[in-house]
Amino acid sequence: MDDPFVIVGGDAAGMSAASKAKREDPDLEVIVFERGEWVSYAACGMPYHVKGTVEELEDLVAVTPEEFREQRDVDLRTGHEVVAIDREAKTVTVDADGDRFEQPYGTLLIGTGARAIEPPFDGVDLEGVFTLRSMDEADAIESYVTERDPETAAIVGGGYVGIEMAEALVERGVDVSIFEMLPRTLQPFGEETARTVEDHLRDQGVDLHLETAVQGFSGDDRVERVDLEDGSSPAELVVVGVGVAPSVELAEAAGIELGPTGAIATDEYGRTNAENVFAAGDCAEATNVVTGDPDHVPLALTANRAGRAIGTTVAGDPTPTGGTAGTAIVKAFDLGAARTGLVDSERAREAGFAPLSVTIEAPTRPHYYPGATDLAVTLVADRESERVLGASLVGEEGTKRIDTVATALHAELTVPELQNLDLAYAPPFSPVWDPILTAAKVLNGKLADD
Amino acid sequence: MDDPFVIVGGDAAGMSAASKAKREDPDLEVIVFERGEWVSYAACGMPYHVKGTVEELEDLVAVTPEEFREQRDVDLRTGHEVVAIDREAKTVTVDADGDRFEQPYGTLLIGTGARAIEPPFDGVDLEGVFTLRSMDEADAIESYVTERDPETAAIVGGGYVGIEMAEALVERGVDVSIFEMLPRTLQPFGEETARTVEDHLRDQGVDLHLETAVQGFSGDDRVERVDLEDGSSPAELVVVGVGVAPSVELAEAAGIELGPTGAIATDEYGRTNAENVFAAGDCAEATNVVTGDPDHVPLALTANRAGRAIGTTVAGDPTPTGGTAGTAIVKAFDLGAARTGLVDSERAREAGFAPLSVTIEAPTRPHYYPGATDLAVTLVADRESERVLGASLVGEEGTKRIDTVATALHAELTVPELQNLDLAYAPPFSPVWDPILTAAKVLNGKLADD
Repeated sequence: MDDPFVIVGGDAAGMSAASKAKREDPDLEVIVFERGEWVSYAACGMPYHVKGTVEELEDLVAVTPEEFREQRDVDLRTGHEVVAIDREAKTVTVDADGDRFEQPYGTLLIGTGARAIEPPFDGVDLEGVFTLRSMDEADAIESYVTERDPETAAIVGGGYVGIEMAEALVERGVDVSIFEMLPRTLQPFGEETARTVEDHLRDQGVDLHLETAVQGFSGDDRVERVDLEDGSSPAELVVVGVGVAPSVELAEAAGIELGPTGAIATDEYGRTNAENVFAAGDCAEATNVVTGDPDHVPLALTANRAGRAIGTTVAGDPTPTGGTAGTAIVKAFDLGAARTGLVDSERAREAGFAPLSVTIEAPTRPHYYPGATDLAVTLVADRESERVLGASLVGEEGTKRIDTVATALHAELTVPELQNLDLAYAPPFSPVWDPILTAAKVLNGKLADD
Repeated sequence: MDDPFVIVGGDAAGMSAASKAKREDPDLEVIVFERGEWVSYAACGMPYHVKGTVEELEDLVAVTPEEFREQRDVDLRTGHEVVAIDREAKTVTVDADGDRFEQPYGTLLIGTGARAIEPPFDGVDLEGVFTLRSMDEADAIESYVTERDPETAAIVGGGYVGIEMAEALVERGVDVSIFEMLPRTLQPFGEETARTVEDHLRDQGVDLHLETAVQGFSGDDRVERVDLEDGSSPAELVVVGVGVAPSVELAEAAGIELGPTGAIATDEYGRTNAENVFAAGDCAEATNVVTGDPDHVPLALTANRAGRAIGTTVAGDPTPTGGTAGTAIVKAFDLGAARTGLVDSERAREAGFAPLSVTIEAPTRPHYYPGATDLAVTLVADRESERVLGASLVGEEGTKRIDTVATALHAELTVPELQNLDLAYAPPFSPVWDPILTAAKVLNGKLADD
C-alpha cells in the first residue's frame, strides 16, 4: 500500500482536502494531525458566539470529528502536533500525549493556519486580556463577559475582528472603546468606506480612538486599564485584534520556501518547493487575480477552495487552487462593508497601475419603492487599460453586490464592460441602474475626461 | 444650424438618449415626440401602484416633462404622434391636436416601445377588462379596485406581470385566479424555479390554472366571468398579461428592416439599416451575449442603456449599446425569482449548445446564523466548452445573486472559472461557499463525469 496523504492542521484547508481526497479516491489513506481538539469550525462565526447570536459554540462546527472519522473515513487525530517534517525521508514527527513518533507520507499538506499577532504589550498576560485566535478563546471571552459582567472593554485594532467584537460586546451591554494605531479603521476597505463605518460606530456609542498607540494593560490580578501614551482608559476586558501572521515555523524549519508576503510560497496547484508537499489556507500564499502576484489573504473561502482543489489533485485529477481577489465583507452594527481587489491607490500604484477612483451613493431600490437605502460604491480602475481594479461598498443593505465586481476582476473586465453588464432589475430589488452600474458610468465618464 | 436629433417616443430609451445627447453636446437641438402625456416613467412600478405600495402614480415618474424642458433643455412635445418617416427627405410627419406637420431630422431615434398583446378574446371590451400597458391603465385598474371592490379577479398569463398583479390584487383583498395556457408559469425562468413559484402562489391563495386556455369574458355591462373551454370562472376584474410585442409599424412602413425576432434590427451602435436612423428599447433588438444572435428583451435596463449609448453616439462619441443577457428578477409574494442567459435546455440546443444543468438548494447564510433561507440555484452550462450558459434562482432572499452569473455570462466564463470566483463571505451575509459557487461545484462534478 502507498504511503498515506498526511495533513497537518484540521481546519478549513486541511479538512476540505481530506474530505475531497477520500471522496474522489476512497482507497487513499488520509491522516489528519490536529494539535487542538476543534476541527472544521467556522472561525468567522466566533464573534457571534460572544454576541449571543450563536448560542452554542458547538454550532460553529461544520462537521464533527466523529463524522470525519466514521462517515468520511478520514483518520483524524486530534491532540496530535506535528513538530518536524523530514523532506528526505518523507516523514513527519508527531507529538501526542507525551509520545513521539514518525509518520511516513506519500503526499503532505501543510495547513497550519495563522495565529493572532500579539504585540509585546505590557500586561498582556493579565486576566481579561484576549485575542480571538481559537474556539477556546471565543469561549473564554464569552464566559468572561457572562461571569465578570465588565462595564468597559477595549478593543485593540480596528480591523474586521475588532469591529465585529465591538458589535458583539455592545450587544452584551459593555461600553466599548476601539484603539487603532493608524489614522483609520478597515485599512483594506479604503478611506470612504472606513469613514462611513467609523461614523456609524460612533453613532452606536463606540468610543473610537484613531492614531492611538496602546502601550499596555494594567490592573491588579485582572485587567482594569489600557495604558496609552498620555493617560489611560478603563477596560475590564481587552480584545487584541491587530491581525494575523501565517504559521510557517514548521515549513520554514524544513527548508520550505516562503514567498514575498512571508507565507508559504505555492504554485497554482498549491505545491510548495518540496517534493509532494502542498500548502493551503491561512499559512500559504495565493495568486492575486488583479496583480498576478503572490498574496496572503487569510480568509475562509480561499482556504476551503485550495484545500478542496488539493484534495482533488492528490486523488489524481490535477486542479488549480484558484486565485484570490481579496474579497471580504463585514457587518458593523447596522451597516455592511465589502471590498474586493485593489481599493487603495497606493497599493494599486505599487502593483504598476495608474489608479483612478470614484465614490458614488445610489439607492438600493427606486425612490418610489419603500425601504431603499443608500449604498456607497467606491470603484477603482486603471487609467491606461481602463481595467477594473477593485471596489468597496458600504450601506445598510446590498453590500453582497461586491460579488459583481469580484467576478469582473476575475474576468479582467474594463469599466466600459462593467457599465454594460445586464444586471437584474425590478423595483423590489434594485433601481434600473444597479449602484454598481451607476459607479461604472461615473467612473467611465471620468476616464473619458482624463 | 444642423437638423435636430429627433426622437420618437418619450420613455426609457428616448428620454435617456435625449438627456445624454444634450449633456454631451448642449448645442445639439433635441426634439422628442411623445403621443401620450406620460414620459420617463417606471412601467415596472405600475403593479406596485395597484398594490398600494406606491401611493401616487406620479411617484413613478423619474423626471417630469417640465424638468426635461427646463433643466435639460430638451424640446419635449407630449401629445405629438409621429405617423410617418420619410427616409429620403429625412423628415417625420407629426400629428398634434388635429394638425399635421413635417419635422426634418439630422438623426432619428425610434423608441416606440412595445404594446401589450391582446388576443382576440370575446368580451375584451367589457368594462373591467384591462391590460397593463400604460400609466393610464395602471391608474384605471387601481381606481376600479377602489371603486368596485371586486371579490374576484382573473389574470390571463402567468408571466411576471401576471404574477406581480396577482400579488397586488391579493394584497387588495381580491380572490385571484391565474390562467396560463402553457404547462407552467414564468417560461424564461425554467421549470425548477417556476414550480417553486407556483407552489408559493398556491400557498398564498392564488387559484392557479395551468394548461388552461381562456375563450373570452362575459357579463352584463361589466365583466363577470372568464369563459373557459369547459365552464367558466367568476371574475369581476380581468387583467390580460400575455406578453408584449414590439411596436414596429412606423419603422416597417418606412422600409426599416426588422430582425428575426420581429423587432427592429440594429447594429452594435443601435443603428438601423436606414441612414442616420437608430432604434432602441422595447421596439428594437439587442445582441444576446450568450448566443451572439439578435434577441428581443423588452426590459428597462436594456432600453435605458441603449438610449444612453445612442445619445452619446449622436453627440459625437460612438458608443456600443451593449448586449443583453436577458437578466430578469421578479417578486412573487415572499419569494424572489431571477434568471439570466439560457435556462431552457431546448433554447440552448437551438442556439447550438449541448446544455447540462443542475439545480441545488443552499442556505443564504451558515446554518448557525439566524435567518438563513434556502436559495435554489439552477445552473446551465455547455457540455463541450464548459461555458456557463445561464441560471435561474428562487428563494426568499438572495436572488440578486443572479448578477454574479450575469457577469460571468458577459465574460464568457466556464464552470471551473465560476467555481473559482472569490465571492464575499461573512456569516451575516453568506455561507463560505456562496450558493452560486455550490451550484458551480456540483455542475463541475457533473461535467467531469459526463
